Amino acid sequence: MNITPPDPGLLSLNTATVREKWNLREMIEGCARHGIRGISPWRDQLAALGVKEAAKMIRNNGLTVTGLCRGGMFPAADRKGRQAALDDNLRAVDEAAALGARCLVLVVGGLPAGSKDLKGAREMVRDGIGETLEHARAAGVPLAIEPLHPMYCAERACVNTLSQALDLCDELDGGKGGALGAVVDVYHVWWDPQLESQIARAGDRRLLAFHICDWLVPTTDLLNDRGMMGDGVIDLPQIRSWMEAAGYRGFHEVEIFSARNWWKREPGEVLGAIRRRHQQCC
Amino acid sequence: MNITPPDPGLLSLNTATVREKWNLREMIEGCARHGIRGISPWRDQLAALGVKEAAKMIRNNGLTVTGLCRGGMFPAADRKGRQAALDDNLRAVDEAAALGARCLVLVVGGLPAGSKDLKGAREMVRDGIGETLEHARAAGVPLAIEPLHPMYCAERACVNTLSQALDLCDELDGGKGGALGAVVDVYHVWWDPQLESQIARAGDRRLLAFHICDWLVPTTDLLNDRGMMGDGVIDLPQIRSWMEAAGYRGFHEVEIFSARNWWKREPGEVLGAIRRRHQQCC
Repeated sequence: MNITPPDPGLLSLNTATVREKWNLREMIEGCARHGIRGISPWRDQLAALGVKEAAKMIRNNGLTVTGLCRGGMFPAADRKGRQAALDDNLRAVDEAAALGARCLVLVVGGLPAGSKDLKGAREMVRDGIGETLEHARAAGVPLAIEPLHPMYCAERACVNTLSQALDLCDELDGGKGGALGAVVDVYHVWWDPQLESQIARAGDRRLLAFHICDWLVPTTDLLNDRGMMGDGVIDLPQIRSWMEAAGYRGFHEVEIFSARNWWKREPGEVLGAIRRRHQQCC
Repeated sequence: MNITPPDPGLLSLNTATVREKWNLREMIEGCARHGIRGISPWRDQLAALGVKEAAKMIRNNGLTVTGLCRGGMFPAADRKGRQAALDDNLRAVDEAAALGARCLVLVVGGLPAGSKDLKGAREMVRDGIGETLEHARAAGVPLAIEPLHPMYCAERACVNTLSQALDLCDELDGGKGGALGAVVDVYHVWWDPQLESQIARAGDRRLLAFHICDWLVPTTDLLNDRGMMGDGVIDLPQIRSWMEAAGYRGFHEVEIFSARNWWKREPGEVLGAIRRRHQQCC
């Protein structure tokens, strides 16, 4: 187990963590002020500020965009819906390119409304990623498939393990050219008995992002009850050690959906806590 | 996909489904009255009625005990706690034997309080099952490992996929003698991309029980918001067809934890709904 505290220069803020009280401008300035060198914006906030203005502000503040959240949501009940999803993903690639993002995060989508055809939904995901990949490659934006916790299978993402994400990578980008990989978000994968072996399988070329937070006991809400690092049961230093053993040298992106706690606090306080906990608990 | 309605004679009631309004005596009489031929009691209700009296009533009403809920909960912070868990499992085996239960269901337990050592907890589970197995074999009670949904990993069960359960079976009972196997509960495993292949791997000898209900969209509570068959997104006929292709000929046990809906209803109405939905949706 890794017991050396992580490099604070690798800290990144997924802006969902402070989304209730700050707009993207305040988030960028907040990161700069708190010495957080990475940022991962969401597209609704990006649209509100404007991609050009955001890119300029991020550049001027010396931040790295560790990911853009998010593309994906490929399955749809009909051809028109699938085409709309594809178009949106191509736009997301362009936005990620304009920001110089290290990857576009893909939350791939769940079952179309009224459907029980999980295999079919997974095929739509495969096809959607495949159809986005060429444009992403040309734009220099790696696509990062984020396996989501199985409790989100129906509504958000039917890719639910790192193994499954890597199978998709192998199928669509067998050459490991770097255009397709995965996000390891501890919240979604910490329980997986295959996690260590699949991180090793992924290796540096496929490990595009590392998201951290914690799993609270008890968890009172399926969506918005994530914990700050150290407040839950995830062995974060161990998972970081597996990432590093696989060659990952990228950022540690903090993403906390927390309606009952962190979203209620003053964002400057949250950023301070993130810096401390990153050193103490990760 | 299987489109023939299932044999109504294979229906079983997991008594948790009506636990808020009926005691075990009422449950047994209710099953008999509604033509439900299988029952799976919980140990607290069994203790309240008395094992001997329950066994007699179940026999007199011609019911099959498709499982006893539950053993397990092996991990503990210290040796004393682990010994207490083991003793309790040995007693559970005896109770299952007294009832002539088809299996003792094992909800294996999660992390001990304060622990983040998931690998250690899983080793305690393996050891605990191993130490219970000889007594179970002698008593003629198969132990059925129930992989629980990954959202229960911290608090209830750190065995979270059928693959993981079957690995344990192979390790502890390589000969497939029938003393150790798994429960397939659709609620816990429906999302798993490996489900079909792992059911096939398990085969008849390892498939000790089949639990049914449904996954609601949205799900509003992690514990007690399961749906009646047909009200959610699980493709029940498909999973049944995989079970049957693997040689499973056992009962279909309905287990619905539903604080906001089914637990509030009159149990006779619930049993009627179960009978109809079993024919229409499974």
